[in-house]
Amino acid sequence: MSNPILVEVTRGPLVESRHRGAVAVVDAEGRTVLAVGDVAAPVFPRSAIKALQALPLIESGAAERYGFGDEALALACASHSGEPAHVAGVAQMLARANLSPADLRCGVHWPMAQSAAAAVARSGGPSALHNNCSGKHAGFLCLACAMGADTTGYFRPDHPAQRQVRAVLEDFTGTALDEDGCAIDGCSVPTWAVPLERLALAFAKFGTGQGLAPARAQAAARLRAACARQAWFVAGTGRFCTAIMAHFGERVFVKTGAEGVYCGALPGQALGIAVKCDDGAGRASQAIMAAAIARFLPLDAADRAVLAPFIRPTLRNWNDYEVGAIRTMDAL
Amino acid sequence: MSNPILVEVTRGPLVESRHRGAVAVVDAEGRTVLAVGDVAAPVFPRSAIKALQALPLIESGAAERYGFGDEALALACASHSGEPAHVAGVAQMLARANLSPADLRCGVHWPMAQSAAAAVARSGGPSALHNNCSGKHAGFLCLACAMGADTTGYFRPDHPAQRQVRAVLEDFTGTALDEDGCAIDGCSVPTWAVPLERLALAFAKFGTGQGLAPARAQAAARLRAACARQAWFVAGTGRFCTAIMAHFGERVFVKTGAEGVYCGALPGQALGIAVKCDDGAGRASQAIMAAAIARFLPLDAADRAVLAPFIRPTLRNWNDYEVGAIRTMDAL
Repeated sequence: MSNPILVEVTRGPLVESRHRGAVAVVDAEGRTVLAVGDVAAPVFPRSAIKALQALPLIESGAAERYGFGDEALALACASHSGEPAHVAGVAQMLARANLSPADLRCGVHWPMAQSAAAAVARSGGPSALHNNCSGKHAGFLCLACAMGADTTGYFRPDHPAQRQVRAVLEDFTGTALDEDGCAIDGCSVPTWAVPLERLALAFAKFGTGQGLAPARAQAAARLRAACARQAWFVAGTGRFCTAIMAHFGERVFVKTGAEGVYCGALPGQALGIAVKCDDGAGRASQAIMAAAIARFLPLDAADRAVLAPFIRPTLRNWNDYEVGAIRTMDAL
Repeated sequence: MSNPILVEVTRGPLVESRHRGAVAVVDAEGRTVLAVGDVAAPVFPRSAIKALQALPLIESGAAERYGFGDEALALACASHSGEPAHVAGVAQMLARANLSPADLRCGVHWPMAQSAAAAVARSGGPSALHNNCSGKHAGFLCLACAMGADTTGYFRPDHPAQRQVRAVLEDFTGTALDEDGCAIDGCSVPTWAVPLERLALAFAKFGTGQGLAPARAQAAARLRAACARQAWFVAGTGRFCTAIMAHFGERVFVKTGAEGVYCGALPGQALGIAVKCDDGAGRASQAIMAAAIARFLPLDAADRAVLAPFIRPTLRNWNDYEVGAIRTMDAL
């Protein structure tokens, strides 16, 4: 397996580092529109499929029962930066189902956002609410409650909530998920390996509703609308997913995952996009996703201005001197 | 250019990410003992050559003039974690030359160590002293003072201090450094591209003194002794460079650099080692360096126990569940 170099990182006059990877762009009928690298290789989608993992929350009636609006739904799909409004929003989701932060089993980490981390340090340290996955976990807990299931162990593969999530993933990817391709994610829920081209297919279906049962298509549309309207809650200040969805609205859905994964949908083009950087680098997968959006979405000048700094970011050092750049290759 | 895969990152039953790279091991007479990948390609050594950049501090008499002991010399070679004793040590170096933290031009970043960052947040925020390069910059400033040069602009390529550093690098690498291979480092000093095999040669010379003028060989021995005796000041709590040098003492010198670079010396074997991970990943270059040390240094059981967790680290998630591993490939 030797995927092509898709991103170069320059410093001064030279290329300092190189990132290889694969990109699949597939339409809602399963036709491959672009395949760069080995798109049949199984990939752990990690957090890039949080929106799919959030569908049972709506389909079960839990979201309606607990009165979740756009913010809560966006948080259920989020890898948030742990900023104060993210944390408050997740706490509110839990309270709606008479749950508390102590029920979260995602583990604790410091907020991704440096300003939020500094504030948290001053007030005593982080909790599970600051974990970037806390909104997803709050969603799983609320789903378990609405199902009448025991909330303990809601993150385990054999819990009814995770069995529903697994069935959704099988439906979207058209792939049977089995234990040979199952691992534990950073927040302890299962992550199932899926060929990259099947992830792209899943997001073509997520973006259009094609090939889905009507209730499922409706739930997908509800999540896309929530993320478009509350894009800040999906990521946070200065983050790619937030900047892109805040600008493009429902024209683009995009979500990052750990280890260099990105998934996205262009509903108007009926396309799904899936990216995996071989070495797991987020700086590369983000540039690749930005370039893929620019290639397949019709853009005006304002759109191009939003995408350009993500396709070819300038690198600056601690004194803010320009020291290099990240650039995507012609294959994109 | 297609360097081999040297490191795999597993999650559960699958390989999730892969890192390619090159390794050169060269003896003090310039003979190549191991060459994996393209070892002739120029590489920015970044912070991996801080010990070479610190030599003029000793050769000029500045270190003696300001009464620098092992701690200060280790800090001059360090990418430190910004822990309290690192910061205090750098402040003391500056005070010895009647300089202040305001003279530092390395820029400001939060301490690498999370515990230190939290403490700094509580006390108001980071300063240039917390920059991992502050000890090197204090060394450059003291060198400039001892030379009677203007301290302003001590980080610029044409400053007398940097011209001395450049001459040292040319001597060690046997390579003429020119502007075509010059870029700006994270802390704003110049970084000069050098073929990886020449970096390995430089550290074979650094570890043995062979091929160097007697005063230069003596200065190198002084820095190696300081780093071995005060290994904590070269990096910090829980860091690879500190753990290795604290255990092996003068048997191993090792230093990390940004973008997946590592340099090291095995003085007893008269070998220098240089590693560059193509994609810039420190997790990979560190495992490669650990494997290279294990291959070329005679080890007892205690030595093996120290190296093993760096050669094949277990990956744990936020709940401390084992989720995967990092493993080096047979080419090493």
